[in-house]
Amino acid sequence: MSDTKPNAARAIVSRGPLSKGLWKMEDVTIREPGDDEVVVRVVASGVCSTDVHFGNVKEGEWGACYPCVKGHEGSGIVERTGSSVTTCTPGDPVLLSFSSCTTCALCTSGHPVYCPEFNEINFLGRPVFSPASTSNSPEVTPTIRGSFFGQSSFASRTVVREMSVVNVKGLVSEDEGVRLEELRLLAPLGCGIQTGWGTIKKVAGAGEEDVVCVVGLGGVGLSGIMAAKALGCKVIIGIDVLPSRLSLATDLGATHTLLSPSASSPLPLATLISSVRALTPSSLGPTITLDTTGIPALIRTAIAFTAPRGKILQVGTAPPSTVLDLPIFEFMVQGKQYIGAIEGDSVARESVAELVGEWRAGRLGLENIVEYFGAEGWENAVEGMRGGGVVKPVLVW
Amino acid sequence: MSDTKPNAARAIVSRGPLSKGLWKMEDVTIREPGDDEVVVRVVASGVCSTDVHFGNVKEGEWGACYPCVKGHEGSGIVERTGSSVTTCTPGDPVLLSFSSCTTCALCTSGHPVYCPEFNEINFLGRPVFSPASTSNSPEVTPTIRGSFFGQSSFASRTVVREMSVVNVKGLVSEDEGVRLEELRLLAPLGCGIQTGWGTIKKVAGAGEEDVVCVVGLGGVGLSGIMAAKALGCKVIIGIDVLPSRLSLATDLGATHTLLSPSASSPLPLATLISSVRALTPSSLGPTITLDTTGIPALIRTAIAFTAPRGKILQVGTAPPSTVLDLPIFEFMVQGKQYIGAIEGDSVARESVAELVGEWRAGRLGLENIVEYFGAEGWENAVEGMRGGGVVKPVLVW
Repeated sequence: MSDTKPNAARAIVSRGPLSKGLWKMEDVTIREPGDDEVVVRVVASGVCSTDVHFGNVKEGEWGACYPCVKGHEGSGIVERTGSSVTTCTPGDPVLLSFSSCTTCALCTSGHPVYCPEFNEINFLGRPVFSPASTSNSPEVTPTIRGSFFGQSSFASRTVVREMSVVNVKGLVSEDEGVRLEELRLLAPLGCGIQTGWGTIKKVAGAGEEDVVCVVGLGGVGLSGIMAAKALGCKVIIGIDVLPSRLSLATDLGATHTLLSPSASSPLPLATLISSVRALTPSSLGPTITLDTTGIPALIRTAIAFTAPRGKILQVGTAPPSTVLDLPIFEFMVQGKQYIGAIEGDSVARESVAELVGEWRAGRLGLENIVEYFGAEGWENAVEGMRGGGVVKPVLVW
Repeated sequence: MSDTKPNAARAIVSRGPLSKGLWKMEDVTIREPGDDEVVVRVVASGVCSTDVHFGNVKEGEWGACYPCVKGHEGSGIVERTGSSVTTCTPGDPVLLSFSSCTTCALCTSGHPVYCPEFNEINFLGRPVFSPASTSNSPEVTPTIRGSFFGQSSFASRTVVREMSVVNVKGLVSEDEGVRLEELRLLAPLGCGIQTGWGTIKKVAGAGEEDVVCVVGLGGVGLSGIMAAKALGCKVIIGIDVLPSRLSLATDLGATHTLLSPSASSPLPLATLISSVRALTPSSLGPTITLDTTGIPALIRTAIAFTAPRGKILQVGTAPPSTVLDLPIFEFMVQGKQYIGAIEGDSVARESVAELVGEWRAGRLGLENIVEYFGAEGWENAVEGMRGGGVVKPVLVW
């Protein structure tokens, strides 16, 4: 089926967990947009570990409802808008980010990522797609859940909540060819990049006196390294199990890197404690540590090596049943701070504009971390990311 | 033995854990003060759970070295000073607080409580006392460890590190009788009171928009309630297992109180989650929660009921092996902050002066929480505190 018809699309449909081989590219039909929705012709969509996390759980776990379409770092062109939409019109270039309720105390005070309805809105989504085989008519009740992070951008065309739309008209080139090229490169801004950058800048409030350590150098972690560099932090330490990531971190601003002991390493994780501290003034440890791994043993280690009064920022996702066994007394007497954060506490329309500016100013090296894949090659993109060969895969539609 | 001789004293000597009946009032001899030390005639000493915690562990655990003398909320009059002492002279009235190294990055930046040597200096102390029976001469090498929190004020006379001395000349009455009365009442300022007050004011930065919840209404918790009231916090919730503490909290500023399910209660702790939230705007939960209990199940509950982006402040002491099993994902997506804090992050010479001012202004109701005991009746004081009948026992020497 072609997706040249106004409601036709191709989509990576998750009919069950990824690990069971239940994600497939399918021809689908999108329903009509609601009043507060926008039809977007997707140009590109970044792939993030969160897609894999949420598309790899059992039916019912984390409220997972298969079949569904993932993808939450989309870019594209608006095709149609619902009746109440005011922030974009057909033809506008857009980047896509998360959604929230817009009316609660968190949403109205500049912290929409902590909206109490965030999980329901972003993780559960709404029915959007139907198998193309059932009908070509948009009147058919959709059976495939979309609106993951308000967007489900693992599709050539999708229905997006207006709240998830960041209009980048005026921020990207007027030239159509350059514009498409920029939309491809900028696609991941609305999640992974703003998460790493915003957590270091907005949540941690890093500055020149800070000693920053980033554990896990994926797209989020490397964005954190770039933010620390842009903010002039005096020491910036990157830690990963892959030597290739360490050299990339150095290119992007890390002043020091350390190879982490891995599961198969003879070195215990505890060796990291003295190694990290040795790189910091008076061996006190980092004042800001960013964990992007979600691995409890690494988080415990990171808490241990962080300086007294230091902040440990949790952005790495762990399965919902995972607990961190945190030593209460030691943590307390050292005045440490364990801080959960998602999306860099961003207001996407502000953060995306800021990040486009940082990229144009040469402080956000997206070209160093993005790798393109034709959407049909999504399996290579996912495998590349999981295997560590690819930092930030972007599917081009 | 009388303690009228210049090196004679009575002291509560811990010769082993309290629970084994190994604390005893004894006649002792103090050694001469070092260059940076001061001999203080103790007027009064507050009793705090930390004395009991550290005086109830097995030899070697937490670096415990018996015999030793506890007590870390002392007040008194300076009798003699070491050669390098500059901040007080004989006859000066003083309140006693913690010590730190004075030279590290934390000490020189206004955060001495997180000095890397804090534990060694405050919990291990230095030999100070000898049994009076061995000799009346100060030349005898002391065998009983003193200098707990730089002071070991469970003694009628003790050797104090200058760093632990807050000179309150000018802050307390010139009239000798009134001065002694004030020193008795103000004795606990240097630990428990500044911990509760400073954690709400300085660490949490509470203000009029905050919804504060205090779990555990001992001296620290009630000081937190009083700070929240002084700062105009719009909702102040107190939680305890004792009805008497709830009415005291109401007297001191709590707008709401809740009886906590206890270990013997048929109600699960989880019932607190909805009960607390129901008292807060939009049922979002408190923006600031202070845990003074150190009990993991209560801390988990407190983390659960705290609002998105809320701060959970850990000041309750748990044994060093105690871990908090913190649900990583839930904590992260709600952007919560778990913050360890001791001593209210205070610089004692500043905080004590501030607290004396708050007391004189009627915002710090010490009279509501302090209960006096003759030092010989220390067992009643400890039992009263542990049983809950007494909030803040103060031993009068």
